[in-house]
Amino acid sequence: MTAKWVYTFEEYPRLKEQLGGDDDAVRTLLGGKGAGLGEMTALGLPVPPGFTVITKACLYYLAHEDFPPGLWEQVMEGMRYLEAKMGRKYGSPENPLLVSCRSGAKFSMPGMMDTILNLGLNDETVHGLARMTDNERFAWDAYRRLLEMFGETVLGLPESDFHRALQEEMALWGAQDETQLNAEALQRLVRRFKGVYIFHGQEFPQDPYEQLRMAMEAVFRSWNSPRARAYRERTGIPDDLGTAVNIVAMVFGNLGEDSGTGVLFTRNPSTGEKGLWGEYLLNAQGEDVVAGIRTPSPISRLAEEMPQVYEQLKRMAEILERHFRSMQDIEFTIERGKVWMLQTRTGKATPQAKVKMSVDMVQESLISKEEAVQRVSPDDVELLLHPQFNPHDMAKARHEGKLLARGVNASPGAAVGRIYLDAEKAKAKAAEGEPVILVRPFTKPEEVPAMLVSKGILTTEGGATSHAAVVARQFGIPAVVGASEIKIDMERRVIQVNGREYPEGTWISLDGTSGQVFLGKLPAQPPAIETLEELSILLDWADEIAAREGVRSGENGGPTRGLEVWANADLPKDAAFARKLGAKGIGLCRTEHMFFEPSRLPYMRRMIMATTEEERREALATLGNYQVEDFLGLFRVMDGLPVIIRLLDPPLHEFLPSLWELIERVTEARVREEPDEEAERLLEKVKELHEANPMMGLRGVRLSILYPEIAEMQVRAIFEAACRAKEEGLNPIPKVMIPLVADAGELEVIQEQLVRVAKEVMEAYGVDIPYEFGTMIEVPRAALTAGQIARVAEFFSFGTNDLTQMTFGFSRDDAEKTFLVRYLERGILKDNPFQTLDLDGVGRLLRVAVKEGRAARPGMSIGICGEHGGDPRTIRFCHDIGLDYVSCSPLRVPVARMAAAHAVLESV
Amino acid sequence: MTAKWVYTFEEYPRLKEQLGGDDDAVRTLLGGKGAGLGEMTALGLPVPPGFTVITKACLYYLAHEDFPPGLWEQVMEGMRYLEAKMGRKYGSPENPLLVSCRSGAKFSMPGMMDTILNLGLNDETVHGLARMTDNERFAWDAYRRLLEMFGETVLGLPESDFHRALQEEMALWGAQDETQLNAEALQRLVRRFKGVYIFHGQEFPQDPYEQLRMAMEAVFRSWNSPRARAYRERTGIPDDLGTAVNIVAMVFGNLGEDSGTGVLFTRNPSTGEKGLWGEYLLNAQGEDVVAGIRTPSPISRLAEEMPQVYEQLKRMAEILERHFRSMQDIEFTIERGKVWMLQTRTGKATPQAKVKMSVDMVQESLISKEEAVQRVSPDDVELLLHPQFNPHDMAKARHEGKLLARGVNASPGAAVGRIYLDAEKAKAKAAEGEPVILVRPFTKPEEVPAMLVSKGILTTEGGATSHAAVVARQFGIPAVVGASEIKIDMERRVIQVNGREYPEGTWISLDGTSGQVFLGKLPAQPPAIETLEELSILLDWADEIAAREGVRSGENGGPTRGLEVWANADLPKDAAFARKLGAKGIGLCRTEHMFFEPSRLPYMRRMIMATTEEERREALATLGNYQVEDFLGLFRVMDGLPVIIRLLDPPLHEFLPSLWELIERVTEARVREEPDEEAERLLEKVKELHEANPMMGLRGVRLSILYPEIAEMQVRAIFEAACRAKEEGLNPIPKVMIPLVADAGELEVIQEQLVRVAKEVMEAYGVDIPYEFGTMIEVPRAALTAGQIARVAEFFSFGTNDLTQMTFGFSRDDAEKTFLVRYLERGILKDNPFQTLDLDGVGRLLRVAVKEGRAARPGMSIGICGEHGGDPRTIRFCHDIGLDYVSCSPLRVPVARMAAAHAVLESV
Repeated sequence: MTAKWVYTFEEYPRLKEQLGGDDDAVRTLLGGKGAGLGEMTALGLPVPPGFTVITKACLYYLAHEDFPPGLWEQVMEGMRYLEAKMGRKYGSPENPLLVSCRSGAKFSMPGMMDTILNLGLNDETVHGLARMTDNERFAWDAYRRLLEMFGETVLGLPESDFHRALQEEMALWGAQDETQLNAEALQRLVRRFKGVYIFHGQEFPQDPYEQLRMAMEAVFRSWNSPRARAYRERTGIPDDLGTAVNIVAMVFGNLGEDSGTGVLFTRNPSTGEKGLWGEYLLNAQGEDVVAGIRTPSPISRLAEEMPQVYEQLKRMAEILERHFRSMQDIEFTIERGKVWMLQTRTGKATPQAKVKMSVDMVQESLISKEEAVQRVSPDDVELLLHPQFNPHDMAKARHEGKLLARGVNASPGAAVGRIYLDAEKAKAKAAEGEPVILVRPFTKPEEVPAMLVSKGILTTEGGATSHAAVVARQFGIPAVVGASEIKIDMERRVIQVNGREYPEGTWISLDGTSGQVFLGKLPAQPPAIETLEELSILLDWADEIAAREGVRSGENGGPTRGLEVWANADLPKDAAFARKLGAKGIGLCRTEHMFFEPSRLPYMRRMIMATTEEERREALATLGNYQVEDFLGLFRVMDGLPVIIRLLDPPLHEFLPSLWELIERVTEARVREEPDEEAERLLEKVKELHEANPMMGLRGVRLSILYPEIAEMQVRAIFEAACRAKEEGLNPIPKVMIPLVADAGELEVIQEQLVRVAKEVMEAYGVDIPYEFGTMIEVPRAALTAGQIARVAEFFSFGTNDLTQMTFGFSRDDAEKTFLVRYLERGILKDNPFQTLDLDGVGRLLRVAVKEGRAARPGMSIGICGEHGGDPRTIRFCHDIGLDYVSCSPLRVPVARMAAAHAVLESV
Repeated sequence: MTAKWVYTFEEYPRLKEQLGGDDDAVRTLLGGKGAGLGEMTALGLPVPPGFTVITKACLYYLAHEDFPPGLWEQVMEGMRYLEAKMGRKYGSPENPLLVSCRSGAKFSMPGMMDTILNLGLNDETVHGLARMTDNERFAWDAYRRLLEMFGETVLGLPESDFHRALQEEMALWGAQDETQLNAEALQRLVRRFKGVYIFHGQEFPQDPYEQLRMAMEAVFRSWNSPRARAYRERTGIPDDLGTAVNIVAMVFGNLGEDSGTGVLFTRNPSTGEKGLWGEYLLNAQGEDVVAGIRTPSPISRLAEEMPQVYEQLKRMAEILERHFRSMQDIEFTIERGKVWMLQTRTGKATPQAKVKMSVDMVQESLISKEEAVQRVSPDDVELLLHPQFNPHDMAKARHEGKLLARGVNASPGAAVGRIYLDAEKAKAKAAEGEPVILVRPFTKPEEVPAMLVSKGILTTEGGATSHAAVVARQFGIPAVVGASEIKIDMERRVIQVNGREYPEGTWISLDGTSGQVFLGKLPAQPPAIETLEELSILLDWADEIAAREGVRSGENGGPTRGLEVWANADLPKDAAFARKLGAKGIGLCRTEHMFFEPSRLPYMRRMIMATTEEERREALATLGNYQVEDFLGLFRVMDGLPVIIRLLDPPLHEFLPSLWELIERVTEARVREEPDEEAERLLEKVKELHEANPMMGLRGVRLSILYPEIAEMQVRAIFEAACRAKEEGLNPIPKVMIPLVADAGELEVIQEQLVRVAKEVMEAYGVDIPYEFGTMIEVPRAALTAGQIARVAEFFSFGTNDLTQMTFGFSRDDAEKTFLVRYLERGILKDNPFQTLDLDGVGRLLRVAVKEGRAARPGMSIGICGEHGGDPRTIRFCHDIGLDYVSCSPLRVPVARMAAAHAVLESV
């Protein structure tokens, strides 16, 4: 028994049953298009008869350069079936059946592989078609289309030759476009096109079965075309799937004004609004819509032009959406008033539309809350944070010919600005307040400052890991790279695209999300995430999911509490914003930022420069008063939620002028013989405080041990503020975090001392407040000795920024401007470890610390407050190792909430 | 049946047999002295009869403040036994037996606990004693001694009162010292001493048994005296051992010129020379030797004065040494020509003597090589490296009254210099070339520079973990701290001791090893370790032991190869020295030091500052030529041994002038309007290369990846040198080490490139050389991902200096001058992690790396080349985790060799 290579659309339900209803297995065999057509056939929708050659046949063909045994015989059977269904005969001069040969892989690869229409036409059947349709022009048009498509895709003849022949013929008839060519002209064109074949030593096969065989082979081969391979590499589609081939009886939308073709979405893919959305052209074939010669009409117009057809489409759209439980992207053709469905698939939508549709579908009882959450990725939420162009506006700009170039979508987001061609000019213009798009062949490290002041970056060379791409992603600047159609002429200071020139200063719009670059200014929507009502509903569902007990795998000891999202915020206004965006606590309040405020810095300096105990105390007291207000503000905003306040962390010299500056000042004054005593005093202090590697120097808990009076002042202020908040009827939950601990001994020394201060304050106010003292785990040794540290610390928070620095030995300030970018370019590191947590090294330390920390102090609260806290992949990891919360910048809270829910759903 | 609390010396063999011959158990019960006396009795040596009250009785007494049931009865039995043995009677006015009551704990605690002699004397028996000995003066002398000793130790009466009484009596008789007092005077003194009792409301018990009971209680109590507790804490002796009490029949060395007392060692404890060594006094009791009123004679004189006695002692010394198989420290008394042995124990010797004796005893077949090695600790070897005072010289100085003070022996070694009382003066005098001993109440961080230029440090306050102690140990400066007898008078700029004054500039000699401070200049022996013949023999044995296969536990997979000692050396002369000291390879040759040489630095700078490819190449070529010579020199010296050469490690800015300096130069020139172009160019470059945290910046492998031409030049030079060495008939074994790797990807990129260079060179020379490429494990992540790295690296070397920095987040340059000293002072950290490897954190990383590295590359060579490589405790750890070698500075090689052997012996 030979294998079965061919399934008719009608056989689809049986195959699906054989595969135990496994949709994925069905799609693996039949491809997405074949499955969709089979599914629609089974639903009783009007689908032209057809059959699918399964992907396995493609893989066999690619391996053996030959059809597998039995395939051709089964295709013949399929053709008999089609002939019977359609009452026509393939290759018959009287009553010819025409078919299309369409590729259809498991995953959609739009435009990447081949399709040939109108197979079955030849010098004889073209007359039969003319007679049958009573439309000679149509028949010759179909034939010349076949000749061009077959020549280009099956035989690889140059498109330009067909194009030139068309142009000449049009010129001869004075036609503005193809639609103006009459039957005679098209018949002449057929002759000219055959000439192209002959010129290249080829011949168009008159045998329809030869056409069919060659077309199938071409579709098989197209799986391995360079652009298809490149697409797969970019999108992560495996190379060993192969494509299916669908042989479908042709139906025609270009048989007159009662015919047409169109595309529709069951909901608006841009906004998510419910209702048919799409466009159509009467008297046209599918490719005419794409070619853009005629402007299609919006689908709503069809309700007037062909009300019955419109109603039928609406009904079918509903059926499909109900069936597939997702917004569908449908291709249809109307042949003399009859609707034919040619394709259905889940439609691609903007992030905003995804959010709205998902929420709506839950409310329509179409999908569950879990499904709704699952359909919106953290990346989708992130895209909502970047300015974006509306897909409409971009489509319109494309139709208007404003698409300047396409490149690699290197860093998402929309940017509108004027192009400048070198770093100096870009910096100068940015300084003048102009929105700058930096355009370069490629970028170099010394151009980073210019990149940072640009709204967008455009390069003509390089790929997704080029310097420009890496830096742009790093700093969230929209970028398109490798836009090779653009040439930069530095002498004349212009860019050239397709023979046209645009001078420096030209306005362009750059879409880093899709890789498109447009001429002129497109409106970019600013992020207004907190105003999106549906997003807030969806995120609430995400929170419910993330908070589920017992759902998580909790590798360190069974089910755990849910994964919450907290925020890093120093000021009440940031905390308020974070809370509005759904933060369930403050995971990191950096107190040092409070001291850098212009009104306070002088006191900080006075404290550092103090020569007497009294001076020092006075300055500290003033700072303490400020701090009480700071913390009171936070407690008011975060009423009832935990607030982790980190004690002073940076080295003291950061509060003084820079050493370089002071050396200059002092030297200058000395040479001028006008000694600057203040500068000299400062210089002396700064030199005393100078450290070779301040990152690993006198900061964090080390500072508190050497100068406990600062930490005591801060703790006093925290608890005074908490007591006052309590008196206001609020419920403050302060958690004091001691940074940079490397050994349990450090905590032992300082924590007791500070707890005493806290108790004193609470006693003085006669108030009892729940509180905890804990530590950052941000030094490798702290993670390695977490069991000892947890005997003192009541909570852990992973400071993964510093932990990454020390685990790698990468000074962040230095590495990112020197070797790290090179490492990412060369693929030495796959990800920037400062953005996505390094699981092998840093992650391993986190695992150790969670396990041994909780072993010493069961149930202790552990979270992460490094910048990684907002990164979806890191969040997944945090969930897997059993953290209680992730804390990130307020704006990333929604992304993190979504990521937390996804982590829970994926680990079930 | 009551427990047995008392054992006579004659019962010793039976007890030992009952305990299965377990010497340790015997000593636990009987204490060291009791066991020694029993052992000597069993050997048939003349020991005065006696018995031992076991340590358990002491523990019972301390817990219950009472004797255990049955003890007193057994003591009575013991007294009967003594009376029978001696033919005298305790308390008899006619024929009185006198006894001593001596403490004797398991471990020797010299001078820490109490002993009372002459028990049994009272107003009546004193007359009996006079009659019996026919020596009235002797009898009264013995009585007054008992009164003083009993008063002070049993009743706690003040020594000064007895002293004053003695002084007054001597004044009355015009006596210069006690020996000039006659019987009458001594009898009067007895009366005066009784007056001291009465004055303090006490009475001397006339009942000899009351005397005995009270003496025993006093000895028991002395176990818990503050000084005994402090001694135990310092030396690590457990508190729960208790002391035994030995009741021994008195024999007298002060019965005339045919009597005497002395101390002898079976070998010279200072040099190790074989032969009796010691001193004696005729007509004297033991305490007279200690008191130092009369000068004892060297033991050799006894051969003339009492030849038979001398011969007898010699014979007995031999018996004891053969028996105990170690040099013995023996106390003896000669009573009217008869020798009595009062104590024997293993003698304390200088490190030098230990080495000689151990080697000699092996050659005398007294002990095995393993025992010889075990008897000399790595610390002993280390002491041989420091200048030392000869114990003779110190004893002499003590006898001459030049001992100024005793303090805590905070940092070993001998220092001779002039005292200066503040940091400024110390620095100034040191700058003038004077040898300075800094004398301060305590030290502060800002005094560190002065400490570093001092030969020795002396403080009057603080203990072993004070700032002065910590810093001194850190930098290997001899120090005595907490010498509280010394007062510093800053106004008059003198120090005061016992009422005498010594001005600034006074010469003193300070022994940090023992804590003694002497007036004047003692000769200090410089270290000349390589000239000590016996040491070299002993270390060869140590190497044999360390190299034994299958002996080591090898926690990471069974028996491993031996633990070798290699050296860190950059220059051929250092390597030669290291090889002479026994290094089996070079574990770290730092190539950067080669570039800092004045003749080469200009080329290094030219390379860094090069603006053209050609300029850069030229400079590199010159450096390459130098390097070939460098490496050739190393290969010649290390013929046949592995040489690990580390590629350039430090950041490039280290080869340029400092930023501060350049800013000053440039600013000055600008203000003067005489622009300094060279400085400006340098400044620009230095600013470009400036890093916030250079420790974690562009250095090591990162440099090689960004500027591979430097690494290629070095590898080319290494292999050119190796090929030339081969041509010279030598056997070079180059191993190229790539530093600062954090990810396997870095090695993948650079190693292949460099191996290619190596092969090119070898091909050009037509020579084949065994080589390896490997990496330092010095970044925490490298340890955490060692399994991945070992797939590329062929060997590992732990760079524990950097690894410690990053694991703790302690910048060494900064930490040691700021918070680290404070941490050690306050006991937050027990050890300086830059000296002794931190096992909990850094050590844990080493374990992981060894295990996972060897899992990926079985049998790969792994060593350590940080400064910890010379630290005995770290070496023990390195052995336990299965390292192949430790590499340290050449001078520490002997210490490490000994430590390696000890590690092997201890882990058997």
